[in-house]
Amino acid sequence: MGDPAGIGGEIILKSLPDLCRKSIPVIIGDLAVLAAYSSRMDSPAPFRKFGRGRPGEAEFIDMGLVSGVDFGVVDGRYGEAAYRYITEALKYIYVGDVAALVTCPINKLSVHKAGIPFTGHTELLAHYGGVADYIMMMANRDMRVSLVTIHIPLRDVPDSVSCEKVLKTIVITHRSLKDLFAIKDPRIKISGLNPHAGEGGIMGNEERLIEEAITVARSLGINAEGPFPADTLFHRRDCDGFIAMYHDQGLIPIKTVDFGRTVNITLGLPFIRTSPGHGTGFDIAGKGVADPTGLIEAYRVAEEMASRLE
Amino acid sequence: MGDPAGIGGEIILKSLPDLCRKSIPVIIGDLAVLAAYSSRMDSPAPFRKFGRGRPGEAEFIDMGLVSGVDFGVVDGRYGEAAYRYITEALKYIYVGDVAALVTCPINKLSVHKAGIPFTGHTELLAHYGGVADYIMMMANRDMRVSLVTIHIPLRDVPDSVSCEKVLKTIVITHRSLKDLFAIKDPRIKISGLNPHAGEGGIMGNEERLIEEAITVARSLGINAEGPFPADTLFHRRDCDGFIAMYHDQGLIPIKTVDFGRTVNITLGLPFIRTSPGHGTGFDIAGKGVADPTGLIEAYRVAEEMASRLE
Repeated sequence: MGDPAGIGGEIILKSLPDLCRKSIPVIIGDLAVLAAYSSRMDSPAPFRKFGRGRPGEAEFIDMGLVSGVDFGVVDGRYGEAAYRYITEALKYIYVGDVAALVTCPINKLSVHKAGIPFTGHTELLAHYGGVADYIMMMANRDMRVSLVTIHIPLRDVPDSVSCEKVLKTIVITHRSLKDLFAIKDPRIKISGLNPHAGEGGIMGNEERLIEEAITVARSLGINAEGPFPADTLFHRRDCDGFIAMYHDQGLIPIKTVDFGRTVNITLGLPFIRTSPGHGTGFDIAGKGVADPTGLIEAYRVAEEMASRLE
Repeated sequence: MGDPAGIGGEIILKSLPDLCRKSIPVIIGDLAVLAAYSSRMDSPAPFRKFGRGRPGEAEFIDMGLVSGVDFGVVDGRYGEAAYRYITEALKYIYVGDVAALVTCPINKLSVHKAGIPFTGHTELLAHYGGVADYIMMMANRDMRVSLVTIHIPLRDVPDSVSCEKVLKTIVITHRSLKDLFAIKDPRIKISGLNPHAGEGGIMGNEERLIEEAITVARSLGINAEGPFPADTLFHRRDCDGFIAMYHDQGLIPIKTVDFGRTVNITLGLPFIRTSPGHGTGFDIAGKGVADPTGLIEAYRVAEEMASRLE
């Protein structure tokens, strides 16, 4: 359900008819949060207890952590609740009772206030997934972009881009495009770090490390090309996945092209995990105007990936 | 004409019918370069000498610097020629014989090899224009983006973003949107530097300088807002211009949305200057497959701006 004070509950209610179409969604959260919407929503959702749902229905696991909710408020109790929804979900993942994890947005500050030492969903799931080599991919119908670095200040990006990290990102992206997206010989294009990919060293030379990584990747039989100047790369449609060096370099093009349908996918975890590309929407939470498209897409992508692994 | 070894000559020949529609284009370059295309192009262009053209015709100033051309090759002689096409054009600008300057792409490495100490068109024109306060704007039918920093390594960006530079960019963009684009009270939205605009200082704090600049701009009566997280900013259509902090942050969204029609405009010069948003296209130069859309748009925008200043 994500942060109780965010738009998570609302987009879940709004998207239920779509989510129930092919599979049974299991919602983990607080019924009290959904109750706050009941007067505003047309009809109550047909929730069943876990394991009781039939096709066309949704199941709900009520954690009973939050009794009421102040929408749009940063609060350690909400951060704690959001965190426990996730750890509860992981139990079901690990015993094999559910096929994939779809997360609604959490508020980093609220989780922080709860005294939980994680900077985000992705980092948290990697910790519980027991993996160091995970990466973040954003995907919509137009493109897929994997990131070499994520939530760090722009100032720290150049020194964080290493040959090892670029190579790891290429390899995990390659493997995931094959296994989870069923692409036989994925074509991957990699961006440079500097304007014009450094233009032969005139504007930075981190591109040498990127070239090195690409050379190794190609020797492993991966169809990887680059580094390309980032500004003229992302309009291309002759590849299956892009690799960007930092957060905004990869997220700007994909969200500019189709903000609503952009999905966040964590690759390299021992389970499938997606989430909508947007945030908690604190400015509009509780107002009934949130757009469920991102969650519907995140669920659809998780469903597709799970069906390929079956 | 831009770099003789690039696609400049080809896109000029292909776009001539469009360029001649409302005004008389004056091409400055080498006829020998166009001759290399003559066997591949359908019909030779109806060139006149400077001052002899009539409506529907184009004029050509043959510099006689290059006798033949190896397409796609970095060469100091080509860099020197490209440079001299520009300085020649400036003479016509300054005596008032032409209304605007439209430049085809040059190769920075070739200019560099010619021993000319300039990093790009924009910097060169600012030098000869005698201005320090110029900025680069990219524009197409979807959006306009001005840049606070341009052709520097990503590593140098954070320390190059100052309150003064952000303010200067806002002020020049505001003035140009009014004067050259005829927008009465332009709405300008400004991006942050770090992911999530620093998310309250968790991921960088250069946003404080940007906030300072926006406060000053607003006190000057400018409709400026921000800093906004860059990844969720550029899909918005509720403003007349964006300000981005660095090259790729601004160029990625605009080129991803409409690569072909993106135009580069230098604001703050004592004359009008535009250019297509793409590069020299060395990989396809001489093959007859270059798309002239960018040049046609750059010419059209220059024509429109010139008509507003008349």
